[in-house]
Formats: sequence, structure tokens, C-alpha cells
Amino acid sequence: MARELRASICLVFLALALEVVDSTYVSGQQQPGIAERYKEVAEQIMTVAQSDSSAYERLTELVDRFGHRFSGSPNLEQALDWILQEMESDGLENIRAEPVMVPHWVRGSESAIMLEPRWKQLPMLGLGGSVGTPPQGITAEVLVVESFEELTARASEAEGKIVLFNAPWMGYGPTVQYRGRGAIAAAEVGAVASLIRSVTPYSMDTPHTGAMRYDEGVPRIPHAALTAEDAAMLQRMQDRGERIVVNLYMEAKTLPDVESRNVMAEIVGHEKPEEVVVLGGHIDSWDVGQGAMDDGGGCVAAWEAVKLLKRLGLRPRRTIRVVMWTNEENGLRGGNAYRDAHRTELDNHILAIESDAGVFEPQGFGFTGSDAAFEMVSQIGSLLDAINAGRITRGGGGADIGPIMREGVPGMGLSVDGSKYFWYHHTHADTIDKLDPREVALSVAALAVMSYVVADMEERLPR
Amino acid sequence: MARELRASICLVFLALALEVVDSTYVSGQQQPGIAERYKEVAEQIMTVAQSDSSAYERLTELVDRFGHRFSGSPNLEQALDWILQEMESDGLENIRAEPVMVPHWVRGSESAIMLEPRWKQLPMLGLGGSVGTPPQGITAEVLVVESFEELTARASEAEGKIVLFNAPWMGYGPTVQYRGRGAIAAAEVGAVASLIRSVTPYSMDTPHTGAMRYDEGVPRIPHAALTAEDAAMLQRMQDRGERIVVNLYMEAKTLPDVESRNVMAEIVGHEKPEEVVVLGGHIDSWDVGQGAMDDGGGCVAAWEAVKLLKRLGLRPRRTIRVVMWTNEENGLRGGNAYRDAHRTELDNHILAIESDAGVFEPQGFGFTGSDAAFEMVSQIGSLLDAINAGRITRGGGGADIGPIMREGVPGMGLSVDGSKYFWYHHTHADTIDKLDPREVALSVAALAVMSYVVADMEERLPR
Repeated sequence: MARELRASICLVFLALALEVVDSTYVSGQQQPGIAERYKEVAEQIMTVAQSDSSAYERLTELVDRFGHRFSGSPNLEQALDWILQEMESDGLENIRAEPVMVPHWVRGSESAIMLEPRWKQLPMLGLGGSVGTPPQGITAEVLVVESFEELTARASEAEGKIVLFNAPWMGYGPTVQYRGRGAIAAAEVGAVASLIRSVTPYSMDTPHTGAMRYDEGVPRIPHAALTAEDAAMLQRMQDRGERIVVNLYMEAKTLPDVESRNVMAEIVGHEKPEEVVVLGGHIDSWDVGQGAMDDGGGCVAAWEAVKLLKRLGLRPRRTIRVVMWTNEENGLRGGNAYRDAHRTELDNHILAIESDAGVFEPQGFGFTGSDAAFEMVSQIGSLLDAINAGRITRGGGGADIGPIMREGVPGMGLSVDGSKYFWYHHTHADTIDKLDPREVALSVAALAVMSYVVADMEERLPR
Repeated sequence: MARELRASICLVFLALALEVVDSTYVSGQQQPGIAERYKEVAEQIMTVAQSDSSAYERLTELVDRFGHRFSGSPNLEQALDWILQEMESDGLENIRAEPVMVPHWVRGSESAIMLEPRWKQLPMLGLGGSVGTPPQGITAEVLVVESFEELTARASEAEGKIVLFNAPWMGYGPTVQYRGRGAIAAAEVGAVASLIRSVTPYSMDTPHTGAMRYDEGVPRIPHAALTAEDAAMLQRMQDRGERIVVNLYMEAKTLPDVESRNVMAEIVGHEKPEEVVVLGGHIDSWDVGQGAMDDGGGCVAAWEAVKLLKRLGLRPRRTIRVVMWTNEENGLRGGNAYRDAHRTELDNHILAIESDAGVFEPQGFGFTGSDAAFEMVSQIGSLLDAINAGRITRGGGGADIGPIMREGVPGMGLSVDGSKYFWYHHTHADTIDKLDPREVALSVAALAVMSYVVADMEERLPR
């Protein structure tokens, strides 16, 4: 008996010791831990979310009815009107639209035609913000380079030419630089236009658009993306010593700013309504495809997460606010305007969550905030292990919540299986059929559990 | 000792018994079997083929220089001129071009625009042989059906409409029927034009063209393919009760036949030059993409197989003839013309091999011929097990060799990993980058070994 007693005591100490290192108990002063307190409600949320196809259906209706939703377009504003109506029918609270002035870039007609060594139409997309060409287009010889370094080495050959950056896919960050500052680098060495290989690991003759920029003091030259296939072909032609001549035609221009809106709705907190957990995505898209995964899906998943909580009668202590930011793609005006309009509330913004990586199979969240807060959201994450979405990693957020994160608001981004995201990103192929209803529902579940627990738990997520 | 002797005798009998059922020995009266006799040379061929990148390089040059090679186009004839020159530089024998009159369908400008419920450009490709629309296009309401059966059931709704066959991918054979006879079925119920969902299991906003037909006595209406994405969207719109209106514009027309050529070259047999093993693919393609896998790759792999034998000094007993047939895609005039031009030689056509499934990783051959011949080619196949291309299955051939197979010539088709073939088939995405140099080289190896052994073995492949 004595031996058994000693063994029992040992087990108790062992259990206590384990509890100390168990993240479920590290940060909370309270007993039981957050995960334990919210286990039941989280299971309820996840169960209902998975049996609910309304997020996928609503997203389908959004993208079928309005198509892509580019800043400055009627589609975007019509979609916003519809969303505001739908939010009313959901019974959400404090539904409102906050005005935001957004850039108004219009693509117009555009084309790229290879004239030498043989005639070929080159599928292309002008890059957002680019200037157009003269009415007859720009006809010039092409210089293909694989990198900025190669352009520097061959700078003397670039004068009067169209530079094509045939940069191979090296992941998004390194590769997208050619989209961002290719026109600057090409103009600096005297090029008359700049082309890039589309920023993607995979192509089916698919051009990708996206944002680009100019620098003060450097001539503004047209900048467009070719397909990976054609960029590689032009490289081969150059390597064979063939002269390549392309006519680039773009009507692109930037019109005066127009008014758009950030739209939002809430479940008002029952105890600390002034404290806010904000979640959402960007409702604008590029002017191609349906903007289903970038980022209609993120918007609708966040919206449906809040609708689901409402439907389940789960009113948290704090306010949960779903926001659909406008103009992420070519200006970030929505995220900036939100920061400015809500500046006095930012100290009470407990957490900002963004979903803008496609609503593919969710894996967890990336979090930017204090260690103490990381521990707490990790505990909440463990509730999502049941749907394999519990992996909380350090670092994360989103472009739209960036401005308030820089003001000190902890930020979080939904992590998903991104293996095919950049196949579709900013292309005509970003359409609803690429998403899976089950995965969208899981994303709703993950967003609902995370936002609800942070909004409802006694502890205020520390900064 | 007696027991050991008995055991030895048993083993000898067992070995003999096994030899009887071993396919290596079944059909040949000779000892040793075919595989054994050709093991060394097959290994040599496979080794050299795998260290040789010239097939991929030549294919790249072909498709980069000439692009797609549609019947009636200058591209096709220029490619044929170049091929004839290159065959000369390879030192091949009896290089010649045989004239073939081919159809001359021209696509012209074309578009499909959804006008209701909202404006959207619908990427499309007219189907080969289709008539065009009047100059203002055809503007009509759309009726979406998923099958011929559904069209029959809804026949009373089709009058004056554009019928869209939104048939899901059910494999190529069942699905391609909507491309082949959709215009007939739609016209029979009074439709003014016919659209199909592109024939593919996967799409990145990718329309697929291909052949279609009309029937005598049924009005000829325009027939075109939309993307899988848009076909599905139109289905959803109809299911929601929305009225869909599309303007279809096609300048397509059929001009008088023009002359093209089947081109061919040989290694003349040293013992039975009048007996011929023929191998090849079709050099024409649709007027999209580069026709790299359909079927530039098949042509070049067969050509390079023969060039490789020449380079290795392997002159077989019988003649090996590589043929690039013209006009497979929209007429099969090349295959028919070959049959007619070579009718008196067909009894001495020992075997015809076609590669027209893309030069992806080869797996073996499908064979159509007698059981005795199947056994022999299976033995040869076993030589290709070293490169995992030794699977000989029953049934196989190719469209171009179909006409001579119907005259009794045994036929064979190269089998490959076809998992992505129909992603690219008849699209702008059929480009060289989708092929892998190693897999192309393996296809060359498989074709070289099979054609050489059949042409060289003492036994004549039985009918």
C-alpha cells in the first residue's frame, strides 16, 4: 500500500509538472484553461459549420452575380450593395459602409504580338497601375534577361528595347519583385517597355496580373505580364541568336479616384461591447476571373463565421466585427481608411484576423503579437486540432489589417494548404470551381472558433 | 547420389516445362528466343537514347520555329520543308513527300459574350469544320443541358435558342460525343447554335477545340467550345432561374482543299527491303498552342528513333520507314492517302506503329494483331522492362495507321502516362514545356527497340 501511495503521489507530481509545461495552462492564471472551458462550444461550432454549405453557396452567388470586383468598377459597388442587403437578412448588427476613395485604373484593350522571328499573339495582362502605350503601340526588339543582375550586366543592350524579365519561379516573394519594380529597372537602362514572366509556378498559357510601381524621376514605361510558356520561348529564341520583335499595345490609364466602401457588421459584445475582435478579407479583386479565392472566399468565410455564431445564439463578451475591406489589390486604401476611421478604437481592438490566402483546407493561423498572447491563441488553436486546423505559428496577418497591426493591434492570418494558390492568383482561372465546399466550411469553422473564443474569454488577449 | 541425380533430372524437366510456358519461347521455333537474341542491342539502344537529348531539342526547335501546324496553313508546309531538309542532314534514305489534298478550314475572328444576366466575355474556341455566324453574330437565349437525353426531354424549349451541352468529363470517349455531334442534335430540335463544355477533366479557363461534324439534311449551325468554368457557371445561372443571353460571333469557314504532304524517310532493309515496318505520328495540329504533344512529340520521337538506329549503324533485315502523316486532326486525309499510295505494298507492311498520345513517360505498347504476333511483340516488350516500358496490351494503334490496319496490317500504339494529356489536348497550353526531356528520350528508346527488332528478326511477324 505504501508503495502504491508513493506511486500515486509520484503520478500527481508528474501530472502537475506536465501541466506546467502544457501550453493549455502556461499563460492563464485561471483554472481550467481556455481550451477546456471552450471545448464544448468549439465542438458545437465545428459540427454545425461542417454540416452547413451556405458559405460555399453564398460565395458562388457572389462571384456568379458580380464576377470580378475591381476598384473603381460598378461590379464592386453592386457587390457591396448586395452584401449589405444580405447582412441585413442575416440579422447582423451595426451594418454599415464607410466611404473610401480608391484608385481607378482601367485596363482598356491590350495585346502583345510577336512580329519576329514569326507572328504570334502573346497572351498578356497589363500590370495594375501601368501607363498605356501610344495608340500605335510600341514596336521594339526584345531583350530577355533572367534577373535584375543580368539586366545590369547587359545594361548597354537595353536602350530602346522592350526588356522581358524571364525570372523563374522562386516562390512568391522573390519572384514578385520583377512585377513590382521591373518597369523601374528597365526604364533606368533605357528600355521603352517592360514585360515579365507571370509570377507563378504553373501555367496553362495563363497570364497573371498584379500591382506594379513607378519611381519618381524614372520614366514611366508600360509594364505587362506574358505567360510562363511564352517567356520561356522568347528566352530560347534569344539563346538561339534569333532577333525578337514585339508590338505591345495597351490602353491602360489611371482615372481620378472614385468612392468605394469598407462594409462591416457586428455581433455586439454583451459585456465589453467597446472591445472588438475584427475579422475579414478584401472584397475587391483584380479585373480578371471571379476573384473567388482572392479574396471573395476570405470575405465570405469570415462573414459566414459571424453569421454562424449569430445563428447559434453565441453572443460573446466582446464585439465581433466582420469587415470586407475595399481596394487591397491596387492601393490598400481600405485597410488604411479603416485604421483612420477607427483610430480612437484601436486600443480596444483585441485581435484582427484576416483570411487572404484562399479558403483551401485550413491548417491553422499565423499570429503576430506578444508571447503571452501567442500562448493563449495556441490554446485556442488546440480546439481546432479536431479539424486539423490547430497549427498556430509565429508571424502572420494580412495586408488589410497591416495598418492597424502597425498601430499595435495583434494580427492573425488564416493558414491554408496553399499548394495551388499561385496557379490561380490574379488570373482568369481564379473561379469558384477551384474551391471545395468542405474546405470552405472548415475555414468558416476555424474562423468562428478563433474569433468567438478570443471575443468571449474572460482574459483580454494581452498586447 | 541417386537421389541427387533424380533431383537434377526433375530440375531439368521443370526447366523444360517452364520454357514451354515461358513466352520467350512459345511462338518462335528458333532457339534462343527473340528477347535473348536482341538483349544486347536493345540495351545499347536504350543506353544511347537515354544519354541523347536531341529528340527534345529537335521538337523544341520545330514547335518554336513553326508553332502550331494546322492543315492548310503555311506553318505546316514550312515545317514539312524543314523536316525534309533535316532528314537529309540525318543521312536517312528515300526521303520523300507524297502529296495529299487536305481540308482548309479557317477559324477567323470569333467570340462569345454573355449579355444577360451580366456582361462577360466567355473564352471560346470554334470547333473544326463549323460554319460561321452571320456578320452580326447570333444573339439568343441559352438552354443548358447536361446530356443528349436531357436535350431530348427539353426539346420543346430549344427552338431559336443556343444549346449548351454542359456534359461533365466522363473520360474522353463518352464526353467527346458532344463535340462530335452536338451541332446535329441541337439543330434537330431547332437550336440556332450549339456550344459545349470543353472536353477535359481540368481547366484553367482553357477552351479546347477539336473536330465536329454535320449530317446531311440537318441545318448546319455554328458549334463552339466554352471553358469548363463558364459552362458550369451558365448551368448554375439557369438552375437559379436566370435568363442567359449570349452573342456568338464566328467567322469560321471552309475554303477549297489545298495540297499538303505526308513526309517520310527510311533505313532500307539489307535482306528484305520490300518488307516494311512503318512508324510515326501526325505532323499537323490544331491551330492553337504548339501542337507539341499532339503530335509533334510523336513525330519527332519516331523520327529520332530511326535516326538513332542509323547513328548506331543498325541496318535491319527489313526496311524501317518513319512517316509524318498530315491532316489527322480534321480529315485523316494523310492516313487515307498513305493507304492509297502504298496499297500494293501493304501485304509487305509487317507492322505499323503510331505515337499519338503525347510523349510522356512510356509504359509499353497496345497491339492489334494475331495471337501469334502478340506473343512475339510481348517478347520484344520484355526488352523494354529495363525502362519500365515493356507492358504490351491487347488493342491499340492510331488514327493515322487506322486505314492500313483495316487492310490487315498489324498495328501498335505507344502507351504513355496519360494522366495530364487531356488537360492540354487541343488547347493553347499544348506547349513544349509540358514535356520532359527524359520522358521524350525514353519514348525514343521504346520506339527504336520495338521497330528495330520487328524489322530485323528472322521471323516475319505473322498476320
